[in-house]
Amino acid sequence: MKLEEKTLSSEQVFKGVLLDIYRDEVLLPDGSTSVREYNKHNGGVCVVPLTSDDHILMVRQYRYAVGRTLLEIPAGKLEIGDTPLENCRRELKEETGADGYSFMTLGCYIGLCAYSNELVHMYLCRVTDEYGQQELDADEFVTVEKIPFDKAVEMVLNNQIEDGKTQTAILKAKYLLDSGKI
Amino acid sequence: MKLEEKTLSSEQVFKGVLLDIYRDEVLLPDGSTSVREYNKHNGGVCVVPLTSDDHILMVRQYRYAVGRTLLEIPAGKLEIGDTPLENCRRELKEETGADGYSFMTLGCYIGLCAYSNELVHMYLCRVTDEYGQQELDADEFVTVEKIPFDKAVEMVLNNQIEDGKTQTAILKAKYLLDSGKI
Repeated sequence: MKLEEKTLSSEQVFKGVLLDIYRDEVLLPDGSTSVREYNKHNGGVCVVPLTSDDHILMVRQYRYAVGRTLLEIPAGKLEIGDTPLENCRRELKEETGADGYSFMTLGCYIGLCAYSNELVHMYLCRVTDEYGQQELDADEFVTVEKIPFDKAVEMVLNNQIEDGKTQTAILKAKYLLDSGKI
Repeated sequence: MKLEEKTLSSEQVFKGVLLDIYRDEVLLPDGSTSVREYNKHNGGVCVVPLTSDDHILMVRQYRYAVGRTLLEIPAGKLEIGDTPLENCRRELKEETGADGYSFMTLGCYIGLCAYSNELVHMYLCRVTDEYGQQELDADEFVTVEKIPFDKAVEMVLNNQIEDGKTQTAILKAKYLLDSGKI
């Protein structure tokens, strides 16, 4: 079956500080038409930062869209002109104060493919034992929590961690570490 | 540190057939103000459907926002009035033609917490060996692919599957099956 959908027209319906929403008319594989609404995004990064005693530096942040705080791995928007890895190292530093090294890729993550093209580059890294202060943006309020790696895996499996990128990256890291692949 | 953000004003800036976009002014923990933009969503469901010979019924679908086809587990929007489980059983039937049974929860998944409140209920189930025709919506074009469970896990670990809910649900299912917990 042919699956591709072709653009007939494209309209920007909202442009804010974060969101860039489009409403396109599309030609479907059977020749009929439909509407697709979506957010255009430059992509993101996230990282599982492991300390020398195998804890993850996690961050707790109020997520206004969701209406509560979530426990997540450090993450951020990919800035235009940055490579994902440079961006990731900087976001880690800003949110936790820690310097990362030995970065390894955990692949990519598309969080909500139905209506956002946001593709998140996932990494695993080690962090130095000594680390400095957070360097947060003016409207960012984030606390750091140091969670034993195995406990974080249990929290994912017990449904105590809801954030998708955090679940995916921690389970991938667990598999790859256990299998000796990284 | 206090993390909560309080709503000062809320404005609907786009209402389409799928997206419902808001722009709110918020009071930050330090007393300053900022803007939060987000999508309001009723939630979703997805399922890892296992055949009697331990294959996953997966679906391939063109994702217009992303600009290519993705290999995913069956999923759908949560309809108002439906329970997640009823909804999940129906979406599985519509997208694959298969009847699911022995549903077990794999917890919840928030795909993009920065700007959507969409919470996806994840399940694992078994499917009957005999199954019928797809019952797709008019604008839905989906092909079914039967992938051995272990191969699907490998595809997640090798970064051949980008969809977030699919990565999360398959790895959780693998862990819980291996550990004998389900």
